Amino acid sequence: MDAIFESDELVGYRFYIDQVADYVAGKTAHAMELGQELERAALAVDIAYAGKTVAVVSSGDAGIYGMAGPVFRVLTDRSWDGSNPELITVPGVSALQSAAALLGSPIMQDFCAISLSDLLTPWEQITRRLEAAAVGDFVTILYNPRSRRRTMQLDEARDIFLQHRPASTPVGIVRHAYRPEQAVSLVSLEGLDGAALSVDMFTTVVVGNSNTYIHQGRMVTPRGYEAKQ
Amino acid sequence: MDAIFESDELVGYRFYIDQVADYVAGKTAHAMELGQELERAALAVDIAYAGKTVAVVSSGDAGIYGMAGPVFRVLTDRSWDGSNPELITVPGVSALQSAAALLGSPIMQDFCAISLSDLLTPWEQITRRLEAAAVGDFVTILYNPRSRRRTMQLDEARDIFLQHRPASTPVGIVRHAYRPEQAVSLVSLEGLDGAALSVDMFTTVVVGNSNTYIHQGRMVTPRGYEAKQ
Repeated sequence: MDAIFESDELVGYRFYIDQVADYVAGKTAHAMELGQELERAALAVDIAYAGKTVAVVSSGDAGIYGMAGPVFRVLTDRSWDGSNPELITVPGVSALQSAAALLGSPIMQDFCAISLSDLLTPWEQITRRLEAAAVGDFVTILYNPRSRRRTMQLDEARDIFLQHRPASTPVGIVRHAYRPEQAVSLVSLEGLDGAALSVDMFTTVVVGNSNTYIHQGRMVTPRGYEAKQ
Repeated sequence: MDAIFESDELVGYRFYIDQVADYVAGKTAHAMELGQELERAALAVDIAYAGKTVAVVSSGDAGIYGMAGPVFRVLTDRSWDGSNPELITVPGVSALQSAAALLGSPIMQDFCAISLSDLLTPWEQITRRLEAAAVGDFVTILYNPRSRRRTMQLDEARDIFLQHRPASTPVGIVRHAYRPEQAVSLVSLEGLDGAALSVDMFTTVVVGNSNTYIHQGRMVTPRGYEAKQ
């Protein structure tokens, strides 16, 4: 929040700007629409080059699939000299962390994060990564698992994991973490049915590794391979 | 910090307990040694079963290779009923996030975290994961890259990546992120020499994917594969 307090202006997706509205009275806030990430970054860079301090508001961690990317892209395109304007990235809590905290301790071993959105990445590249994650026995966190338009990706991901892990492998599903409508559920890999489970863009899916177990509704991955239950 | 304020007692590694000492005057603080993770967790669980509120202090995010694991392990062993004592995990900023924030925007695409410590995981399993991460073109964050005792693992990791990525692939090295002795450097994959670069247990190593580039001393991974520079 300090970064927001110290800014002259704010730029962000309308939904996130609304969430910080109480803290930014008197500041100029540029609320923009989803999908306009490069436009938001460009506006922020314009403001910064004009000599003002601007905060780009991102949900989760701006450094993990967040707004740091578009900002650096715009700065690269404008041949930024690396110091003027000054740029500071403030880490936050990413979806994989809030999901893990609500599920138990699923991320105690090596893990991968994979976005199932094929908007900017070809689906063949994504399936190659799913395959690699499954083969490597990584705990795997799926971002953007399913949207109204994209309904098959999660089913395909499940089928890839089923080729390498037991059907009983625990899978945690967290919707709207830390928001009023929060919902947490646990299923088996075999039971990972996106439509039936209402998986959407506000959902994070955590696939356990071959050692992950369930204890009293919590998803637990042992730290060591010596510790298999 | 709220969780610490609201606790009756604290348990943690001596170095971390010292760091919060100013905020816990009057509380009973159990400072213990490195390597005693299960002992710390057992003590905390004892205190909780005795009816007190106890905070287990962990660096980074307790849910990522952190103290959540040992606590859940002890609770599982004691047939915890899932609700009494109540357990809340508070997410924090993990090493991969502080490293990313200091390096630029390296984690804008799918990524893996792999610990190179073979204390609890067989080295063959770790190399299998390094291979999978390299094949899948994941941005890869290496935790525990090198200790006084373990000096070869990082070299082996580099050699595995060199089989799948250009020798020029950017690698970011962050030591003591956000501490007074903080040091950030960028090398090529080929130049990743752990001994020469003083890589140690306080260091996080971030290996770029095939699209990662350097701009004015910052490490940038484009969000999309359409965006290759």
